[in-house]
Amino acid sequence: MADAAGEPLTIIAGGGAVPLTVAKAATAAGRRVFIIGLAGEAGAEITAYPHEWVKWGEIGRFESLLAANGGRDVVLVGAIRSRPDFSSLKLDFGAIRILPEVMKLIANGDSSLLSGVVRLIEARGYRVLGAHEIATDLVAGEGAIGRIRPEASAERDAQLAIAAARAIGSIDAGQAAVAVNGRVVALEAAEGTDQMLKRVTALRESGRIKWNGRAGILAKCAKPQQDLRVDMPTIGPGTIEAVAEAGLTGIAVEVGRVMIVARPEVIARADRDGVFVIGLRRPAAGSAA
Amino acid sequence: MADAAGEPLTIIAGGGAVPLTVAKAATAAGRRVFIIGLAGEAGAEITAYPHEWVKWGEIGRFESLLAANGGRDVVLVGAIRSRPDFSSLKLDFGAIRILPEVMKLIANGDSSLLSGVVRLIEARGYRVLGAHEIATDLVAGEGAIGRIRPEASAERDAQLAIAAARAIGSIDAGQAAVAVNGRVVALEAAEGTDQMLKRVTALRESGRIKWNGRAGILAKCAKPQQDLRVDMPTIGPGTIEAVAEAGLTGIAVEVGRVMIVARPEVIARADRDGVFVIGLRRPAAGSAA
Repeated sequence: MADAAGEPLTIIAGGGAVPLTVAKAATAAGRRVFIIGLAGEAGAEITAYPHEWVKWGEIGRFESLLAANGGRDVVLVGAIRSRPDFSSLKLDFGAIRILPEVMKLIANGDSSLLSGVVRLIEARGYRVLGAHEIATDLVAGEGAIGRIRPEASAERDAQLAIAAARAIGSIDAGQAAVAVNGRVVALEAAEGTDQMLKRVTALRESGRIKWNGRAGILAKCAKPQQDLRVDMPTIGPGTIEAVAEAGLTGIAVEVGRVMIVARPEVIARADRDGVFVIGLRRPAAGSAA
Repeated sequence: MADAAGEPLTIIAGGGAVPLTVAKAATAAGRRVFIIGLAGEAGAEITAYPHEWVKWGEIGRFESLLAANGGRDVVLVGAIRSRPDFSSLKLDFGAIRILPEVMKLIANGDSSLLSGVVRLIEARGYRVLGAHEIATDLVAGEGAIGRIRPEASAERDAQLAIAAARAIGSIDAGQAAVAVNGRVVALEAAEGTDQMLKRVTALRESGRIKWNGRAGILAKCAKPQQDLRVDMPTIGPGTIEAVAEAGLTGIAVEVGRVMIVARPEVIARADRDGVFVIGLRRPAAGSAA
């Protein structure tokens, strides 16, 4: 993004530390940063930068803030814990004006909501960038992150888990899978990665699946159709903890397609718990894998 | 199997009602039936037929019983709750004689154990048949089983769930999937179908996934590589109960590739709980879908 140095950047911020990471990286690259914080989601830390707060439904105000900032580059980043409750949503005049567009988004359901929001923003002349295009350190690179390296024997489970995660991604069902000693033991869908890892722990504790010592891999992959600018799979310190708890050896993620949230804590916890985190390059389209 | 009428049939029986269903169907077709019951698994009902009991590891005795019965057709059927504990297994002389073959089976792990047993039996000149080849009513036919019919709106979730179940089957991970209102919400791996359905109930109760009234489909499919003679996906009365509990509308299974255990109870419970069970034909190889 060297050509964009100095371009103002608007960050539409949900919760967690990532919006701040992006703000810091953008500032370091000489960009003027403006943050629009989603009320109830974004943390008070955003107030360290020029900012305003918006509520769900304040689309008119949101459009004005975007326009007032002057830049054309926008990043949407951060966790959204609460989905808007559409029945009690207070829409401002801006929202009512574009109600047909909004209703279409809502009708299309969860999976396309975010990409719909992106299209709404783009239709107004903005360019939506991924957080990782600003703060490149947010995504996994190739090879091991942290001190722990996988043993050669981990290769088979890593490939199996990655293949499984890709298979369920290609049917838009989930992003994560666990393989242990040559067997896929868990596939993620609506429950999410943390719940899936708890299931692996429970299956092991009940004796339903058995292995000695540490074995097995969690793989996490973006779905092929996922818009990585606004919707990237993530791992964080809690993922490391759950992986260690389940008795797995490590985590395999796709290079450039999975966000490492709170990277220093992830590395510290992985090193402490003896869990490896490795970035694997996605095979080129058309190649066997 | 009309050409086999009168041929003796040996049934190697695990637990549940299915071995008896097979014995009755074979007898009705004019076959002489001999049952080898797996001790601790097969029910006392097998004593209604000529029978003997064998324990895990009594492979020599098992071979003698097979040979003494005189027929060449063999069915392996019934539930195996306990996996043999190989460390405390008492092997008879017959087992020790073929120890290299047995060790290879054990080393290959769960997924190939049963097909390995089939190869062992076939290598001795027997023909292994599927239970459904003797009792054709064991598997789902095309269309609705029972009184409840799916509404036209169920078609999308049925296709989606079937596609998901096939996708995870093709990677040898699981056999079942749940789709609700156009979204895959659960995929089965090591936890099994019942646990997966309980998860759907819990996800719904926690508000993690939401729908009004009844919606969604459980699909169950055989894996492409599954040996349907000895290892067929099953649904039973407990499946109907769990599907109703989860708030789903029905079950879609592949014609001829999923066993309906205790069919009269399945139908009675499905009709009572308002759950449909439908057999869908597998598209011909090479066709779209």
